[in-house]
This record gives sequence, C-alpha cells and structure tokens, in this order.
Amino acid sequence: MKKIAVLTSGGDAPGMNGAIRAIVRVGIKRGFEVYGVYEGYKGLVEGKIKKLGYSDVSEILSKGGTILESSRLKEFVNEKIQDLAVEQLKKRKIEGLVVIGGDGSYRGAMALAKKGISCIALPGTIDNDIHGTDETIGFHTALYNIIDAVNKLRDTSSSHHRCFVIEVMGNHADNLAINSAIACGSEIVITDKTGFDETKVIEELKKCEEVYHKKHAIIIVSENILDVEKLANRISKETGYSGRSIVLGHIQRGGSPVPKDRILASTMAEEAICLLKQEKSGLCVCVKNNRIVSKNIEEALVEKNENHDWLYQLFFDLA
Amino acid sequence: MKKIAVLTSGGDAPGMNGAIRAIVRVGIKRGFEVYGVYEGYKGLVEGKIKKLGYSDVSEILSKGGTILESSRLKEFVNEKIQDLAVEQLKKRKIEGLVVIGGDGSYRGAMALAKKGISCIALPGTIDNDIHGTDETIGFHTALYNIIDAVNKLRDTSSSHHRCFVIEVMGNHADNLAINSAIACGSEIVITDKTGFDETKVIEELKKCEEVYHKKHAIIIVSENILDVEKLANRISKETGYSGRSIVLGHIQRGGSPVPKDRILASTMAEEAICLLKQEKSGLCVCVKNNRIVSKNIEEALVEKNENHDWLYQLFFDLA
Amino acid sequence: MKKIAVLTSGGDAPGMNGAIRAIVRVGIKRGFEVYGVYEGYKGLVEGKIKKLGYSDVSEILSKGGTILESSRLKEFVNEKIQDLAVEQLKKRKIEGLVVIGGDGSYRGAMALAKKGISCIALPGTIDNDIHGTDETIGFHTALYNIIDAVNKLRDTSSSHHRCFVIEVMGNHADNLAINSAIACGSEIVITDKTGFDETKVIEELKKCEEVYHKKHAIIIVSENILDVEKLANRISKETGYSGRSIVLGHIQRGGSPVPKDRILASTMAEEAICLLKQEKSGLCVCVKNNRIVSKNIEEALVEKNENHDWLYQLFFDLA
Amino acid sequence: MKKIAVLTSGGDAPGMNGAIRAIVRVGIKRGFEVYGVYEGYKGLVEGKIKKLGYSDVSEILSKGGTILESSRLKEFVNEKIQDLAVEQLKKRKIEGLVVIGGDGSYRGAMALAKKGISCIALPGTIDNDIHGTDETIGFHTALYNIIDAVNKLRDTSSSHHRCFVIEVMGNHADNLAINSAIACGSEIVITDKTGFDETKVIEELKKCEEVYHKKHAIIIVSENILDVEKLANRISKETGYSGRSIVLGHIQRGGSPVPKDRILASTMAEEAICLLKQEKSGLCVCVKNNRIVSKNIEEALVEKNENHDWLYQLFFDLA
Repeated sequence: MKKIAVLTSGGDAPGMNGAIRAIVRVGIKRGFEVYGVYEGYKGLVEGKIKKLGYSDVSEILSKGGTILESSRLKEFVNEKIQDLAVEQLKKRKIEGLVVIGGDGSYRGAMALAKKGISCIALPGTIDNDIHGTDETIGFHTALYNIIDAVNKLRDTSSSHHRCFVIEVMGNHADNLAINSAIACGSEIVITDKTGFDETKVIEELKKCEEVYHKKHAIIIVSENILDVEKLANRISKETGYSGRSIVLGHIQRGGSPVPKDRILASTMAEEAICLLKQEKSGLCVCVKNNRIVSKNIEEALVEKNENHDWLYQLFFDLA
Repeated sequence: MKKIAVLTSGGDAPGMNGAIRAIVRVGIKRGFEVYGVYEGYKGLVEGKIKKLGYSDVSEILSKGGTILESSRLKEFVNEKIQDLAVEQLKKRKIEGLVVIGGDGSYRGAMALAKKGISCIALPGTIDNDIHGTDETIGFHTALYNIIDAVNKLRDTSSSHHRCFVIEVMGNHADNLAINSAIACGSEIVITDKTGFDETKVIEELKKCEEVYHKKHAIIIVSENILDVEKLANRISKETGYSGRSIVLGHIQRGGSPVPKDRILASTMAEEAICLLKQEKSGLCVCVKNNRIVSKNIEEALVEKNENHDWLYQLFFDLA
Repeated sequence: MKKIAVLTSGGDAPGMNGAIRAIVRVGIKRGFEVYGVYEGYKGLVEGKIKKLGYSDVSEILSKGGTILESSRLKEFVNEKIQDLAVEQLKKRKIEGLVVIGGDGSYRGAMALAKKGISCIALPGTIDNDIHGTDETIGFHTALYNIIDAVNKLRDTSSSHHRCFVIEVMGNHADNLAINSAIACGSEIVITDKTGFDETKVIEELKKCEEVYHKKHAIIIVSENILDVEKLANRISKETGYSGRSIVLGHIQRGGSPVPKDRILASTMAEEAICLLKQEKSGLCVCVKNNRIVSKNIEEALVEKNENHDWLYQLFFDLA
Repeated sequence: MKKIAVLTSGGDAPGMNGAIRAIVRVGIKRGFEVYGVYEGYKGLVEGKIKKLGYSDVSEILSKGGTILESSRLKEFVNEKIQDLAVEQLKKRKIEGLVVIGGDGSYRGAMALAKKGISCIALPGTIDNDIHGTDETIGFHTALYNIIDAVNKLRDTSSSHHRCFVIEVMGNHADNLAINSAIACGSEIVITDKTGFDETKVIEELKKCEEVYHKKHAIIIVSENILDVEKLANRISKETGYSGRSIVLGHIQRGGSPVPKDRILASTMAEEAICLLKQEKSGLCVCVKNNRIVSKNIEEALVEKNENHDWLYQLFFDLA
C-alpha cells in the first residue's frame, strides 16, 4: 500500500485537526503518500481529494473544527453511491482510508472495507457515545466548554437568586450531562437515566433553598428530554428561585482542543497508520482501560458500553 | 456626613464588585463608615443593611455579579415605599447612598435625593445604554464574552459551511450588537438602526457565498428584533449555507471582569466618594470624552447619546 | 470511626479543593463528622483543626489552590513531631485522616498510620510523578495552562521568526514536558530522558528553517536541566531564528481546575471515604488502567511507573 | 494615488492584524490597490512586497501577532537605505504607505514622507507609550493577559502564604504596570514614578500581614527597574511571606486581541485610508479624548503625554 487518504465525517469535534495532522505526518514518515478528502463521504464520492504534505497540516493542531470539512450523506448506505467512492479512490491508486467520525461514519468505513478499501475508523465526536471505546476525540473539550459557560452563569446566578436550567449536548447519550454535572457541582442533573419528574425537581429545589440556603441552583439537562424554558418558568412560579434557561448549543463543540483531546487524537492517528502499514482493514481504534487498542468495527458497534452508574452515585453523594 | 451606604440594583454587570470594593475602601480612607445594602432597593426597604470593612471586599475584584446581590422593585416608584427606605437609612444615621445600576436605578436614586438622602449614581449595565455617559461598567466584559463565544462558533461553522445567526443582549440599545459585529468581523449585523429585511439578508448571504466564496457566515442580531431560529431555517432553505441559530443569553453578563471594567468601576467609585465628601447629591458619575465627570441625574437621563453612525459605516466598510 | 480529618500538604495542585469538598460532603453523607486541618502537617502539629460543614465547601470546586492551605514540614520525619500530631487528633477523637499531596505527604501518612491513625492518601500534584498511579490531581490543569501559554507565544513567534525556549515544571519527572510538547506541537523537547546535546539542538533548528521553512520554533524544556536563557542566546547567534526564553513558573499550577481534575478529585475522595468506612488504613488511592483502586502506600511508593517511551516515539513521529 | 502599501514594524502587538485587514478592505472599497510589505522596513528595502486582496485578510482579525511579520532595522536612519525603500515603492508605483508600529517606526515614516511617499503612521505597541495618543493598538490585550496570569498566581499564593513579585512589560513606560496593579488589586506597585525603596517594600508587606492579615500579596514591577528574584528572596527572609518571582515576558504580547483592540485597530486604519484618500502625508492617527484625530508625526512625537498621577492616587486609595 502506497497511497492512503483521510476524511472527517458527521458532526465536527475539536481534536479532529490533530488527528488529520498526525495521519499526514506519521503517514509520510512511514512511507505513505497521504491524501485529504474534503467534505466527508460526499466529497469522496465527488472526488474532492488533494495530496497533503507536511506543511499543509502546520498550525492546525490548536484549531477546533476540521480543515477537511465535514458533511452528512445519508445516501451513502446505497451501494451504488459507495461504488462511486471506491472508484474515486481506485483511479488515484489510493488503497487505504482513515475515517474520523461517529458511528454513522463507522458504518460507511465498514461498507468500503467490504469493497476492498483498507479502512480504519477513529472515534471523533463530542458525545463520547461510540461503542467499544472509553473515550472519543472531542469529548474533553466539549466538557471544558460547558464548565467554562457554567462558571460564567454562576456569577450572575448568585446575584439574583437564580436557578439556571442548562441544556447540554450529547445526542442520546448522557456522558456530557453527567460528567459536566459533577464537574460544575450542579444541584440537579436530568438525563435519560434519571428520568424527569417535574414535581420532584421542584421539591429538590425547595430543599436547596430551605435546608441548604443556597443562593442559586444549577440544573444540567441532556438534550432531547424536556423544554428547558418551560421548566424555568415553573421554577419561577413555584420556588423562591427566579428560573432562567439556556441552550448552550454549538459553543460546546468549538474552541481550541484541550491537551487531552490533542494527545488522544495524535495517539489514535498513529495507531491507524500502524494498522494500515500492517495492511489491516475494517478496524476501529479504541481506548480501553487507558490503552490504545483496535477492534473489528462490526463487533465494536454492538459492544455494550461501560456502565457508569457509579458516576450517578458520585453525583448524588456530592449534591 | 459620617455614614454612607452602597447598593446594586437592576441586572447585574461584571465590574459591580470592583465598584463596591472601591466605595468601601476609598470611603473608609476618606473617613466614612460604609454600609452594604443587600438585594437592591428591596433590601433597602427591608433593612438588609450591614457594615462593611476593608477585608469584607477582599478577593471580589475579579468576580462577576455583585456580592450585594441585586433585584428589581417596581413598587419603588411609590412614594410610601421610598419613605420606608429613607426611614431605614435614617434610623442608622446613614446620610449618603451610592447606587450602582441602570436608568431604573437612577430614578430611584433621584427620588431618595429629593427626600434628603445624598445620592450618587454609578452606571452599571452591560448594555451601555445609559444616557449621559460614554461607557458603563460591564459593557467591555460583555463584549469580550460575545467575541469569545463567536470565536468558538467560527471553528465549527467553517467545518460545515454554516451560517450562524447569533442573538446578543443589549436591551433596546444596539451597542453590544454593532461593537461585537465589528470586533468579530461578522458578515451581517441586524439592529433597530439597520432594520430587518429578510430578503435582503438572504441576498447578502448569497453574495458572501458566490462572490467572496466564504466558507461560513456570521450574523449578529440585537435582542427583541427577530426570531433567530426562523431566520436560520430560511437560510438553510434558500442559500448554500446550513443555517443555525443561538441565543447567547446570560453567558454574556458572567465571567471575570476585563481590566477595563475593573479600572472604570474603581475610578467611578472613587469619584462618587469625592462627591459625597463634598456633600453633593442627585448626581451621576459619567465618562465623557475619556474624562470622569458628574452630572445632575435628571439632566443626564434626558441627554442625547452620542451618535454612532460611524460605527455602522466602519462595519459596512469592513464586511 | 466517627470523626475524620482532611489535610493538603506539599505543593498545591488545582483540584485539591474538589477533593476537600468531596471528602466533606461524601463523608457527612456516610455518617462522619469531618474536620479540616489547616496548613498541612505543620497545622496538624499545631492543632489548626476546624470542623467543616456542607456549606463550608460551597463554591470551592472551581477554585485553584487549596482552601486548607498547604506547607512543607521537613521535621515531620521526626517521630516526636509525629506524636504531637497524633495527640492533636486523639484529643479531638479524630480517628481517620485523608492526606492529599505528593510522595513526601504519603510518607507522613504512612508514619501516622503506624501510630494508629487510619490514614488514606490521595495523589495531589501537577507533576504526575507519584508511583503507583497513572494520574494525579492537578496534572491535566497544569498541562492546560502550559498549552494556553504556548498558544500565546506562537502568535508573537511567527511575527518575528523566533525560537522560544520554554521551561515547564515537573520536578524530576518528564510528564508535563513530553505531554505538553506533543499537545502544543513543539519542534523539540528536552527532558532527562532525551538528554541535552546543545549542538544537536542547533542542527535540528537549522533543519526546521532550511528544510521545513518554519517561521518559528518552540522548544519545551523540563525544569532543572539547562539554562534556557543561555540556550536562547546561542540560538540567536547560530541559527536564523531569534532566540527567546521563558520560565513559565507558577502560572502552571494556578487557574480553575479543568473538568478532568475536578472529576478525578471527586472520585478519588469518594473512594477514600469508602476505605475509611471500612476502617482501612495505610492505603493510597490510585488510578490504574482507568479504574480507581487502592494500594498499600509502602508498596505503591516503590512500584515502577508505567514506561512511556511510546510518547517520545509519538513526539518524534509528529515533529 | 492608486496604489498603497502597509507594513508593521518594531515589536508586534495584538490588533495589528485587525489594522492590516481594515487597511486592505477599506482601502479596496475606496478604490486603492493595496500591497503588503513583509518584515517591516527590512522587507521594504528588500522588496518583499505582495498585492493583497479581500480574502487574503480573512480570518486574521482574531489572531495575535502580524501576518506581515515585523523586524527592527536600525540602519533605516541611514538616508541611503531609505532611498532603497523609496525605490522599491516607486518602481511598483506605490505612492502611499501605512506604517503600524512604535515611535521608531514613526521616525521611519517621517523620513519616507520627506522623500515624497505619502506616509501615515498608526500606533501599534502594547506599551501605550507613544506620544500624542491616549491609546495604542495592543495595550488592552496585554493588560488582559497580565490580569489573566495574576488570577492564576493568586490561587496558588493564598495556599502557601506567598508574596509574588511580578515583572510586567512596558519598556520605559509605566502604563502596563500601574493599570494592571489597579486591575488586579495588587498590594504594591513599583515603577519609575514610585521609585524603589526595598526597605519600604518590606515594611509595607509586614503591614499587609500584621494589620490586614492578608494571606498573600502581589507586587507588580515595571521592567528594567529591579531584580525580581532578589527582591523575592529578601521577602522570604524578612517577612512572614514566602517570596516568589516571575517575569511574565512574551505571554503578554500574545493571544487573541480583546474587542477593544480590534475595534481601535479597525477604526484607526479606516482613518488612515481617509487621510491617504485626501493625499495627506506625514501624519499619525491618534485617539484623544475618545476621538480619532490625526496629527503631524513630528509634533506628536514631542507632545507631552497626559499626566496620570490620578491613577497612582487611585491605586493608593484602594491598596
């Protein structure tokens, strides 16, 4: 194998650029020619492919987003579309492909692997919701961004006896919510796992006020569970706190990646190059128990994720 | 005059703590006993008043919000309520009062001045919308917070060919919007002054795409003008950009005050003490042409604010 | 056991406050009375001990440093001094003690354990140099601070064709140096492990300039190895870069803890309480392969640390 | 005049990029062709000149340093060298030049103006030490960086009863020192104006300790006045504080420009274009009493700067 390519797919995540940089630089050191595919699978199908040299990835390590841009292409489940992608690679004699993204991207990589392209997948998503790996590229930066925002909200909360209801990202996973709840010392956390009982929330807030005499309260809510504005209004009516809501939104996925994400991205990318050097395919790079390992994509996707009930226990012990 | 008090009122603003600290410390140096009134005019009426010493204001300079807490008390226009406030001060022999807040707070100060309390008002609001002064305590920090947030949104915007529609605060003023639009280099700004023509916005975005080949676009919108989510949806449908909206909300008023706000707060507070030392009343402290001056509150409130059409000109020259 | 205490010792580390907060809150939930010892072992000997309630640890999670303050007491190796400490605890009927600090602090905990106090140690140091654990409280925040500083230096470096020689902390360990070198994408790293060959450094810089046409270069140096100013001067003389040096110093140990350190601190503290509940003593809490475990302090201190040659390999592959 | 150029000279300052961007964009809008000169006067003499379009200055507004790079060329006082510069401009038919830098750069602009190039100078330096203007591009960002660093040092100071002696930049001016001293609430400030009496410093620290019971102390020192390490050592010996020193160095001039510097840079650059459009030369753009004005460079350089004794008064009132 002499030529390989790299693409980013799905939602962008801080650290993706660090992975791209490492694929290019380590790839070149190990004897590959490395190509960048722009705009994910869509760009792959359309042939938006460009050779990348050492200097093309200078100064990107500290930047959020992805210089290769990303997109979602639902039609990529269609085999005819996949064939077009394979064709684009074959006519350039590109035999290996590194895909950085979430589980949708993984499925695309699996499909291409079956069609003879050596595919390696890297977990890039702020949601940390990819099966088979303990950590994904971007998660720690998103967590940092949430905590930074909550720091700012606390100041103003205390000044007005406020309860802030804060919606954080996470797709259908609760990782960002429960971790940020612990890290910011929120009073209440609401996720799929805790469920949402409005009356109980009101009662807990009354306890914060009457028993603990807290000047303000923070509620962290996972996305797709409830209407934060409505809850804030009820809080204003039924407790002594003045309720306010905020949807943190895309601020969470921006910013310069924290060191942890930069190192994780670089390490995983180096592993991907090693796997391609060994002519492996259909694998994803994972972190398990603090080690970098590789797994069959299909098996990884059905693997049960670590139970983190202990995080909830910790949260309740601290709140 | 031997005893004076300080209160914060209305929305909190970063830098208010710096003003409180300076009132206390400079006040003590100039021979006053200084009292803190908690929870604004509401607390004043209820007698939530406590003597403050040098160390009570240690370590607060770098904190957002206000340690004296704030509140809004609409009933304070009622003279009977004002009399209760005067009574609370008189029975403690407090003859002077420094009020930090927006124009609602100024009117309260004016009312108390008429009833014999020596009142000095300081402009504390992120909106920079107080008549008579070029700058208010909190404005520069809010601007910083907005630019910090937009920095984060740009990363992810470029990766997905996005147009972000960002609602910033400012009450009915456009200061935060037009200044942040220039400072973040946004493509479009929408305020009361520009008006909002949806079709024109769409056209301008098409120009950004087709003429300037911009990978992403940022639209800054002043609050209370349009539904940012709706606009984002139309952008997705009618331009090549994927539209997304975000309401920055209370993040803008949080965080550690920037140096400019800390110095402004300290300087204005020192001036307030000087004025009380001279037994002045019914005045507000202002910045005019880079000088600290004092004005009659009544006159200041009707003074016409600086025209800043030149900021719009600058914006259009740069965009 | 009904009464327990907590102290911080040695150099402070961001996250220590999160550990203190968790010891107090989880401790109370599990039925203990919790005491705070001020100023480390010195304060213990002097009886600077105060009961801590739920609210005493409010609002400290996001703060650097340690509210219990810290100190170094070399004389604590002296058994007579240890007896004084035991006495202070016994007369208050405090039977358990959690010590947060580095290996010097561990040895103190071990000594007290031998004298009948149930002692549990938590690893708190930015250097990540404690045997037996993969991670210490404070390390990730220090890494973040370094990367933040290097980000700022890069801007100005590129503008003046500069090479910055940056000294980072780490005591005799290379963890901060090698991890920050990877995370900031430095050109060169110098630690105990790489050794320091000045002539080779000059040659490598010439390669950066002539082969890679880099506008600037960054050299990360572990403390206690070389005089960064001297190296910078030689770089100015013998390469095309203008050399500058900076010793980052205590900025590295300051600032609000990153989420990772807050969660790690909370988790480890909860484990410490569990161990005390089980009447365990002479143990330290560790992270091994992403799990919280406890080990005998004596054994942990002689355990060989994880080899991280792979980090150097990764660094050289990326540089 | 159809063609104009822009260069940055002397030490870089955050905000210079915003000025370059505005020169290019406003310049093009007003009908000029705009050229960038790389590496300051040195690059001008060597003909490192490139045409800049609208998109060449995209995404630079938020970056520190200067994309045109900077340098110092002492030989530029030599008329023969100046003639080479004029020649480089003339052969490209460039008739106007905007110079962004400190007073050394101003003198170069004046010299070129005398030789028939229409020269306009903008004040770009973190030191805020240019005569004739109240503010320079870069000053507010440097101030922000200092306060951010001091915030981090405070955490760790309080934990160890420390006194930090912090050297800040400013060249021979005291602006950064006195403003940061007020903004961070330092206990002591040492500048050319205060002078340095070591014994008095020790006495003041003892007062901080014994009278005010302060857990830590911060001393801000202007560069080129004293050896901060030596002072820290004496503090350790003669007071109850443990003295530590830090030289903040180039971190101060890095980082993303704060909004104030971005807006100031854009506004001043727009004024420079207006002046060139009117065929003016030998002028510098200044801020006086919150207004953008232009002055004859020669006159500006000898103008007496605003007295800021009141800042010292404010500092002493607050400390």
